[in-house]
Amino acid sequence: MKERIIKEAFNLFWRYGIKSVTMDDIAKELGISKRTIYQHYPDKDAIVILAVQQELEVQKCQMEKMDEDRLNPIEQMIQAADYMRISLAHMNPVLFNDLKKYHPMAWDLFHKYKHQYVLKSIRENLNEGIRMGLYRKSIDIDMLSLLRIEQVEMAFDPTIFPADRFNMMNVQMEFVHHFLRGILTEPGFEYYTKYSEESATQANTHEK
Amino acid sequence: MKERIIKEAFNLFWRYGIKSVTMDDIAKELGISKRTIYQHYPDKDAIVILAVQQELEVQKCQMEKMDEDRLNPIEQMIQAADYMRISLAHMNPVLFNDLKKYHPMAWDLFHKYKHQYVLKSIRENLNEGIRMGLYRKSIDIDMLSLLRIEQVEMAFDPTIFPADRFNMMNVQMEFVHHFLRGILTEPGFEYYTKYSEESATQANTHEK
Repeated sequence: MKERIIKEAFNLFWRYGIKSVTMDDIAKELGISKRTIYQHYPDKDAIVILAVQQELEVQKCQMEKMDEDRLNPIEQMIQAADYMRISLAHMNPVLFNDLKKYHPMAWDLFHKYKHQYVLKSIRENLNEGIRMGLYRKSIDIDMLSLLRIEQVEMAFDPTIFPADRFNMMNVQMEFVHHFLRGILTEPGFEYYTKYSEESATQANTHEK
Repeated sequence: MKERIIKEAFNLFWRYGIKSVTMDDIAKELGISKRTIYQHYPDKDAIVILAVQQELEVQKCQMEKMDEDRLNPIEQMIQAADYMRISLAHMNPVLFNDLKKYHPMAWDLFHKYKHQYVLKSIRENLNEGIRMGLYRKSIDIDMLSLLRIEQVEMAFDPTIFPADRFNMMNVQMEFVHHFLRGILTEPGFEYYTKYSEESATQANTHEK
Protein backbone atom coordinates (compact mmCIF):
# COMPACT_ATOMS: atom_id res chain seq x y z
CA MET A 1 0.00 0.00 0.00
CA LYS A 2 2.80 2.40 0.92
CA GLU A 3 4.17 2.15 -2.62
CA ARG A 4 0.79 2.45 -4.29
CA ILE A 5 0.04 5.67 -2.41
CA ILE A 6 3.24 7.25 -3.68
CA LYS A 7 2.65 6.07 -7.20
CA GLU A 8 -0.93 7.27 -7.40
CA ALA A 9 -0.15 10.56 -5.68
CA PHE A 10 2.66 11.13 -8.12
CA ASN A 11 0.32 10.59 -11.07
CA LEU A 12 -2.10 13.13 -9.65
CA PHE A 13 0.65 15.69 -9.01
CA TRP A 14 1.91 15.15 -12.53
CA ARG A 15 -1.48 15.90 -14.00
CA TYR A 16 -2.74 18.65 -11.71
CA GLY A 17 0.28 20.06 -9.90
CA ILE A 18 0.75 19.62 -6.16
CA LYS A 19 -1.15 22.41 -4.50
CA SER A 20 -4.53 21.54 -5.98
CA VAL A 21 -4.29 17.84 -5.06
CA THR A 22 -5.57 17.14 -1.52
CA MET A 23 -5.16 14.08 0.69
CA ASP A 24 -8.84 13.48 -0.01
CA ASP A 25 -8.15 13.38 -3.76
CA ILE A 26 -5.38 10.85 -3.26
CA ALA A 27 -7.57 8.67 -1.03
CA LYS A 28 -10.44 8.85 -3.50
CA GLU A 29 -8.21 7.93 -6.44
CA LEU A 30 -6.98 4.86 -4.55
CA GLY A 31 -10.43 3.95 -3.24
CA ILE A 32 -9.15 3.98 0.34
CA SER A 33 -9.84 6.14 3.38
CA LYS A 34 -7.72 9.17 4.27
CA ARG A 35 -6.99 7.39 7.57
CA THR A 36 -5.19 4.62 5.71
CA ILE A 37 -2.93 7.18 4.08
CA TYR A 38 -2.17 8.79 7.42
CA GLN A 39 -1.19 5.37 8.80
CA HIS A 40 1.69 5.42 6.32
CA TYR A 41 2.55 9.09 5.92
CA PRO A 42 2.31 12.00 8.39
CA ASP A 43 1.35 14.58 5.76
CA LYS A 44 1.30 15.48 2.07
CA ASP A 45 4.81 16.90 2.23
CA ALA A 46 6.18 13.44 3.17
CA ILE A 47 4.42 11.96 0.13
CA VAL A 48 5.74 14.70 -2.14
CA ILE A 49 9.31 14.15 -0.94
CA LEU A 50 9.17 10.41 -1.59
CA ALA A 51 7.46 10.86 -4.94
CA VAL A 52 10.17 13.29 -6.07
CA GLN A 53 12.89 10.99 -4.78
CA GLN A 54 11.54 8.07 -6.78
CA GLU A 55 11.04 10.12 -9.92
CA LEU A 56 14.63 11.32 -9.74
CA GLU A 57 15.83 7.73 -9.42
CA VAL A 58 13.93 6.87 -12.59
CA GLN A 59 15.40 9.87 -14.42
CA LYS A 60 18.90 8.96 -13.25
CA CYS A 61 18.48 5.40 -14.44
CA GLN A 62 17.33 6.59 -17.87
CA MET A 63 20.26 8.97 -18.16
CA GLU A 64 22.68 6.19 -17.21
CA LYS A 65 21.19 3.92 -19.86
CA MET A 66 21.81 6.63 -22.44
CA ASP A 67 25.40 6.89 -21.21
CA GLU A 68 25.86 3.16 -21.69
CA ASP A 69 24.79 3.46 -25.30
CA ARG A 70 28.04 5.40 -25.81
CA LEU A 71 26.39 7.81 -28.15
CA ASN A 72 28.27 10.55 -29.88
CA PRO A 73 28.08 13.65 -27.59
CA ILE A 74 25.97 15.52 -30.15
CA GLU A 75 23.42 12.72 -30.34
CA GLN A 76 23.52 12.35 -26.58
CA MET A 77 22.67 15.98 -25.97
CA ILE A 78 19.78 15.95 -28.44
CA GLN A 79 18.47 12.62 -27.18
CA ALA A 80 18.58 13.78 -23.57
CA ALA A 81 16.45 16.79 -24.51
CA ASP A 82 14.20 14.58 -26.57
CA TYR A 83 13.79 12.13 -23.72
CA MET A 84 12.80 15.04 -21.50
CA ARG A 85 10.39 16.29 -24.13
CA ILE A 86 8.65 12.93 -24.25
CA SER A 87 8.75 12.10 -20.55
CA LEU A 88 7.57 15.54 -19.48
CA ALA A 89 5.04 16.07 -22.26
CA HIS A 90 2.07 15.45 -19.99
CA MET A 91 3.41 17.14 -16.89
CA ASN A 92 1.43 20.10 -15.61
CA PRO A 93 3.82 23.06 -15.73
CA VAL A 94 2.66 24.36 -12.33
CA LEU A 95 4.36 21.34 -10.74
CA PHE A 96 7.78 22.99 -10.56
CA ASN A 97 6.34 26.16 -9.10
CA ASP A 98 4.32 24.27 -6.49
CA LEU A 99 7.40 22.31 -5.52
CA LYS A 100 9.50 25.42 -5.15
CA LYS A 101 6.87 27.33 -3.22
CA TYR A 102 5.28 24.76 -0.91
CA HIS A 103 7.69 21.83 -0.62
CA PRO A 104 11.18 23.21 0.01
CA MET A 105 12.65 19.84 1.03
CA ALA A 106 11.46 18.11 -2.12
CA TRP A 107 12.58 21.10 -4.19
CA ASP A 108 15.97 20.81 -2.55
CA LEU A 109 16.24 17.18 -3.66
CA PHE A 110 15.46 18.24 -7.20
CA HIS A 111 17.92 21.11 -6.98
CA LYS A 112 20.70 18.81 -5.70
CA TYR A 113 19.98 16.29 -8.43
CA LYS A 114 20.25 19.07 -10.99
CA HIS A 115 23.44 20.56 -9.64
CA GLN A 116 25.25 17.37 -8.88
CA TYR A 117 24.09 14.70 -11.23
CA VAL A 118 22.83 16.58 -14.29
CA LEU A 119 25.55 19.23 -14.21
CA LYS A 120 28.22 16.53 -14.04
CA SER A 121 26.71 14.77 -17.02
CA ILE A 122 26.61 17.99 -19.08
CA ARG A 123 30.23 18.72 -18.20
CA GLU A 124 31.23 15.23 -19.30
CA ASN A 125 29.35 15.73 -22.54
CA LEU A 126 31.16 19.02 -23.21
CA ASN A 127 34.56 17.55 -22.36
CA GLU A 128 33.98 14.54 -24.58
CA GLY A 129 32.76 16.75 -27.45
CA ILE A 130 35.89 18.88 -27.21
CA ARG A 131 38.13 15.80 -27.02
CA MET A 132 36.51 14.44 -30.20
CA GLY A 133 36.92 17.78 -31.99
CA LEU A 134 33.15 18.26 -32.29
CA TYR A 135 32.89 21.20 -29.89
CA ARG A 136 35.13 24.25 -29.88
CA LYS A 137 38.12 24.11 -27.56
CA SER A 138 37.59 27.72 -26.60
CA ILE A 139 34.22 27.23 -24.89
CA ASP A 140 34.13 27.84 -21.14
CA ILE A 141 32.83 24.57 -19.71
CA ASP A 142 32.00 26.03 -16.28
CA MET A 143 29.89 28.80 -17.76
CA LEU A 144 28.21 26.88 -20.56
CA SER A 145 27.30 23.82 -18.48
CA LEU A 146 25.51 26.15 -16.05
CA LEU A 147 23.89 28.00 -18.94
CA ARG A 148 22.59 24.74 -20.36
CA ILE A 149 21.15 23.54 -17.06
CA GLU A 150 19.45 26.88 -16.44
CA GLN A 151 18.05 26.86 -19.97
CA VAL A 152 16.36 23.55 -19.33
CA GLU A 153 14.70 24.97 -16.23
CA MET A 154 13.89 28.27 -17.92
CA ALA A 155 11.90 26.49 -20.61
CA PHE A 156 9.67 25.10 -17.85
CA ASP A 157 9.07 28.49 -16.27
CA PRO A 158 5.56 29.66 -17.15
CA THR A 159 6.36 33.20 -15.96
CA ILE A 160 8.86 33.40 -18.85
CA PHE A 161 7.16 31.11 -21.38
CA PRO A 162 3.42 31.28 -20.65
CA ALA A 163 1.64 28.07 -21.54
CA ASP A 164 -0.97 29.85 -23.66
CA ARG A 165 1.72 31.19 -25.99
CA PHE A 166 4.40 28.50 -25.91
CA ASN A 167 4.64 24.76 -26.08
CA MET A 168 7.21 23.96 -23.42
CA MET A 169 8.54 21.01 -25.36
CA ASN A 170 9.13 23.05 -28.50
CA VAL A 171 11.01 25.57 -26.37
CA GLN A 172 13.22 22.76 -25.03
CA MET A 173 14.05 21.53 -28.52
CA GLU A 174 14.69 25.05 -29.87
CA PHE A 175 17.06 25.59 -26.93
CA VAL A 176 19.04 22.38 -27.28
CA HIS A 177 19.59 22.92 -31.00
CA HIS A 178 20.57 26.53 -30.46
CA PHE A 179 22.88 25.52 -27.63
CA LEU A 180 24.60 22.87 -29.72
CA ARG A 181 25.01 25.06 -32.78
CA GLY A 182 26.69 27.64 -30.55
CA ILE A 183 29.47 25.24 -29.53
CA LEU A 184 30.10 23.17 -32.67
CA THR A 185 33.32 23.12 -34.66
CA GLU A 186 33.16 22.64 -38.41
CA PRO A 187 33.42 18.83 -38.22
CA GLY A 188 30.90 18.97 -35.38
CA PHE A 189 28.54 20.98 -37.54
CA GLU A 190 28.81 18.44 -40.35
CA TYR A 191 28.01 15.60 -37.97
CA TYR A 192 25.15 17.58 -36.44
CA THR A 193 23.60 18.39 -39.82
CA LYS A 194 23.79 14.80 -40.96
CA TYR A 195 22.34 13.52 -37.70
CA SER A 196 19.53 16.10 -37.72
CA GLU A 197 18.57 15.22 -41.27
CA GLU A 198 18.58 11.49 -40.52
CA SER A 199 16.43 11.98 -37.41
CA ALA A 200 13.99 14.12 -39.37
CA THR A 201 13.70 11.42 -42.04
CA GLN A 202 13.19 8.74 -39.41
CA ALA A 203 10.55 10.83 -37.65
CA ASN A 204 8.71 11.25 -40.95
CA THR A 205 8.88 7.53 -41.64
CA HIS A 206 7.46 6.81 -38.22
CA GLU A 207 4.61 9.18 -38.79
CA LYS A 208 3.62 7.52 -42.04
CA MET B 1 19.70 69.22 -3.80
CA LYS B 2 16.91 66.82 -4.83
CA GLU B 3 18.97 65.75 -7.83
CA ARG B 4 22.21 65.48 -5.90
CA ILE B 5 20.63 63.16 -3.36
CA ILE B 6 19.52 60.76 -6.11
CA LYS B 7 22.87 60.87 -7.81
CA GLU B 8 24.91 60.25 -4.70
CA ALA B 9 22.53 57.57 -3.42
CA PHE B 10 22.76 55.83 -6.77
CA ASN B 11 26.55 55.81 -6.59
CA LEU B 12 26.41 54.25 -3.14
CA PHE B 13 23.88 51.62 -4.23
CA TRP B 14 26.04 50.82 -7.23
CA ARG B 15 29.07 50.19 -5.07
CA TYR B 16 27.52 48.52 -2.01
CA GLY B 17 24.09 47.30 -3.06
CA ILE B 18 20.92 48.79 -1.63
CA LYS B 19 20.25 46.98 1.61
CA SER B 20 23.55 47.87 3.26
CA VAL B 21 23.26 51.59 2.42
CA THR B 22 21.32 53.54 5.08
CA MET B 23 19.81 57.02 4.95
CA ASP B 24 22.62 57.97 7.34
CA ASP B 25 25.21 56.79 4.82
CA ILE B 26 23.61 58.89 2.09
CA ALA B 27 23.47 61.96 4.34
CA LYS B 28 27.07 61.50 5.40
CA GLU B 29 28.27 61.08 1.79
CA LEU B 30 26.54 64.36 0.87
CA GLY B 31 27.68 66.16 4.02
CA ILE B 32 24.07 67.05 4.89
CA SER B 33 21.68 66.05 7.66
CA LYS B 34 19.25 63.17 7.38
CA ARG B 35 16.48 65.73 7.96
CA THR B 36 17.38 67.48 4.73
CA ILE B 37 16.94 64.21 2.85
CA TYR B 38 13.57 63.61 4.47
CA GLN B 39 12.46 67.08 3.36
CA HIS B 40 12.75 65.82 -0.20
CA TYR B 41 11.96 62.10 0.02
CA PRO B 42 9.67 60.19 2.39
CA ASP B 43 11.92 57.10 2.56
CA LYS B 44 14.71 55.12 0.95
CA ASP B 45 12.32 53.29 -1.33
CA ALA B 46 11.33 56.61 -2.99
CA ILE B 47 15.02 57.34 -3.62
CA VAL B 48 15.60 53.86 -5.03
CA ILE B 49 12.67 54.18 -7.40
CA LEU B 50 13.87 57.52 -8.77
CA ALA B 51 17.46 56.32 -9.02
CA VAL B 52 16.40 53.26 -11.03
CA GLN B 53 14.15 55.38 -13.24
CA GLN B 54 17.00 57.72 -14.10
CA GLU B 55 19.47 54.92 -14.71
CA LEU B 56 17.03 53.25 -17.11
CA GLU B 57 16.66 56.54 -19.01
CA VAL B 58 20.44 56.67 -19.42
CA GLN B 59 20.55 53.06 -20.63
CA LYS B 60 17.73 53.70 -23.07
CA CYS B 61 19.51 56.73 -24.47
CA GLN B 62 22.71 54.74 -24.98
CA MET B 63 20.84 51.95 -26.72
CA GLU B 64 19.14 54.45 -29.02
CA LYS B 65 22.48 55.97 -29.91
CA MET B 66 23.73 52.54 -30.91
CA ASP B 67 20.63 52.09 -33.06
CA GLU B 68 21.35 55.35 -34.84
CA ASP B 69 24.80 54.10 -35.76
CA ARG B 70 22.99 51.58 -38.01
CA LEU B 71 25.41 48.84 -37.16
CA ASN B 72 25.23 45.41 -38.70
CA PRO B 73 23.01 43.26 -36.40
CA ILE B 74 25.98 41.06 -35.45
CA GLU B 75 28.07 44.04 -34.39
CA GLN B 76 25.09 45.54 -32.66
CA MET B 77 24.50 42.49 -30.53
CA ILE B 78 28.16 42.21 -29.51
CA GLN B 79 28.48 45.94 -28.87
CA ALA B 80 25.34 45.98 -26.71
CA ALA B 81 26.84 43.22 -24.56
CA ASP B 82 30.16 45.00 -24.55
CA TYR B 83 28.52 48.26 -23.50
CA MET B 84 26.85 46.40 -20.65
CA ARG B 85 30.15 44.80 -19.71
CA ILE B 86 31.81 48.20 -19.43
CA SER B 87 28.95 50.11 -17.84
CA LEU B 88 28.22 47.42 -15.28
CA ALA B 89 31.81 46.47 -14.52
CA HIS B 90 31.83 48.23 -11.17
CA MET B 91 28.32 47.39 -10.08
CA ASN B 92 27.96 45.33 -6.93
CA PRO B 93 26.19 42.12 -7.99
CA VAL B 94 23.93 42.14 -4.90
CA LEU B 95 22.17 45.19 -6.35
CA PHE B 96 19.76 43.17 -8.48
CA ASN B 97 18.93 40.88 -5.59
CA ASP B 98 18.32 43.77 -3.21
CA LEU B 99 16.10 45.42 -5.76
CA LYS B 100 14.05 42.28 -6.29
CA LYS B 101 13.74 41.51 -2.59
CA TYR B 102 13.24 44.88 -0.93
CA HIS B 103 12.09 47.33 -3.59
CA PRO B 104 9.35 45.69 -5.63
CA MET B 105 8.21 48.92 -7.29
CA ALA B 106 11.71 49.76 -8.52
CA TRP B 107 12.20 46.14 -9.59
CA ASP B 108 8.97 46.39 -11.50
CA LEU B 109 10.30 49.40 -13.42
CA PHE B 110 13.39 47.43 -14.31
CA HIS B 111 11.32 44.42 -15.27
CA LYS B 112 9.07 46.50 -17.53
CA TYR B 113 12.07 48.13 -19.16
CA LYS B 114 13.50 44.70 -19.84
CA HIS B 115 10.32 43.20 -21.22
CA GLN B 116 9.16 46.13 -23.25
CA TYR B 117 12.15 48.09 -24.39
CA VAL B 118 15.01 45.56 -24.39
CA LEU B 119 12.92 42.68 -25.70
CA LYS B 120 11.68 44.81 -28.57
CA SER B 121 15.21 45.79 -29.47
CA ILE B 122 16.39 42.14 -29.45
CA ARG B 123 13.46 41.13 -31.64
CA GLU B 124 14.32 43.88 -34.10
CA ASN B 125 17.91 42.69 -34.12
CA LEU B 126 16.85 39.11 -34.88
CA ASN B 127 14.44 40.19 -37.60
CA GLU B 128 17.03 42.40 -39.24
CA GLY B 129 19.65 39.65 -39.07
CA ILE B 130 17.29 37.21 -40.76
CA ARG B 131 16.34 39.78 -43.39
CA MET B 132 20.03 40.31 -44.18
CA GLY B 133 20.68 36.57 -44.40
CA LEU B 134 23.04 36.65 -41.40
CA TYR B 135 20.79 34.70 -39.03
CA ARG B 136 18.98 31.46 -39.83
CA LYS B 137 15.41 31.85 -41.07
CA SER B 138 14.36 28.84 -39.01
CA ILE B 139 15.03 30.40 -35.58
CA ASP B 140 12.01 31.02 -33.39
CA ILE B 141 12.16 34.75 -32.66
CA ASP B 142 9.69 34.59 -29.76
CA MET B 143 11.64 31.90 -27.96
CA LEU B 144 15.16 33.07 -28.67
CA SER B 145 14.56 36.73 -27.85
CA LEU B 146 13.27 35.63 -24.43
CA LEU B 147 16.21 33.26 -24.07
CA ARG B 148 18.64 36.06 -24.80
CA ILE B 149 17.05 38.47 -22.33
CA GLU B 150 17.01 35.83 -19.59
CA GLN B 151 20.64 34.95 -20.31
CA VAL B 152 21.65 38.53 -19.67
CA GLU B 153 19.92 38.46 -16.31
CA MET B 154 21.20 34.98 -15.49
CA ALA B 155 24.79 36.12 -15.87
CA PHE B 156 24.13 38.66 -13.10
CA ASP B 157 22.67 36.08 -10.74
CA PRO B 158 25.21 35.30 -8.03
CA THR B 159 23.23 32.24 -6.95
CA ILE B 160 24.02 30.72 -10.37
CA PHE B 161 27.40 32.34 -11.05
CA PRO B 162 28.99 33.03 -7.64
CA ALA B 163 31.28 36.06 -7.68
CA ASP B 164 34.19 34.15 -6.16
CA ARG B 165 34.24 31.72 -9.08
CA PHE B 166 33.05 33.82 -12.02
CA ASN B 167 33.68 37.22 -13.47
CA MET B 168 30.20 38.38 -14.39
CA MET B 169 31.46 40.31 -17.37
CA ASN B 170 33.25 37.31 -18.83
CA VAL B 171 30.05 35.32 -18.43
CA GLN B 172 28.16 38.02 -20.38
CA MET B 173 30.65 37.93 -23.23
CA GLU B 174 30.77 34.11 -23.33
CA PHE B 175 26.96 34.13 -23.53
CA VAL B 176 26.61 36.69 -26.30
CA HIS B 177 29.16 34.91 -28.48
CA HIS B 178 27.56 31.55 -27.83
CA PHE B 179 24.12 33.02 -28.54
CA LEU B 180 25.23 34.55 -31.83
CA ARG B 181 27.04 31.45 -33.05
CA GLY B 182 23.87 29.50 -32.41
CA ILE B 183 21.83 31.59 -34.84
CA LEU B 184 24.30 32.43 -37.64
CA THR B 185 24.01 31.32 -41.24
CA GLU B 186 27.18 30.61 -43.21
CA PRO B 187 27.49 34.18 -44.52
CA GLY B 188 26.68 35.36 -41.00
CA PHE B 189 29.45 33.20 -39.61
CA GLU B 190 31.95 34.65 -42.08
CA TYR B 191 30.98 38.18 -41.11
CA TYR B 192 31.12 37.29 -37.42
CA THR B 193 34.57 35.73 -37.68
CA LYS B 194 35.97 38.70 -39.57
CA TYR B 195 34.42 41.15 -37.14
CA SER B 196 35.65 39.21 -34.08
CA GLU B 197 39.18 39.08 -35.44
CA GLU B 198 39.19 42.78 -36.24
CA SER B 199 37.88 43.66 -32.77
CA ALA B 200 40.55 41.48 -31.18
CA THR B 201 43.26 43.21 -33.21
CA GLN B 202 41.90 46.62 -32.28
CA ALA B 203 41.75 45.67 -28.61
CA ASN B 204 45.39 44.57 -28.75
CA THR B 205 46.43 47.78 -30.45
CA HIS B 206 44.66 49.78 -27.75
CA GLU B 207 46.43 47.85 -25.06
CA LYS B 208 49.87 48.54 -26.50
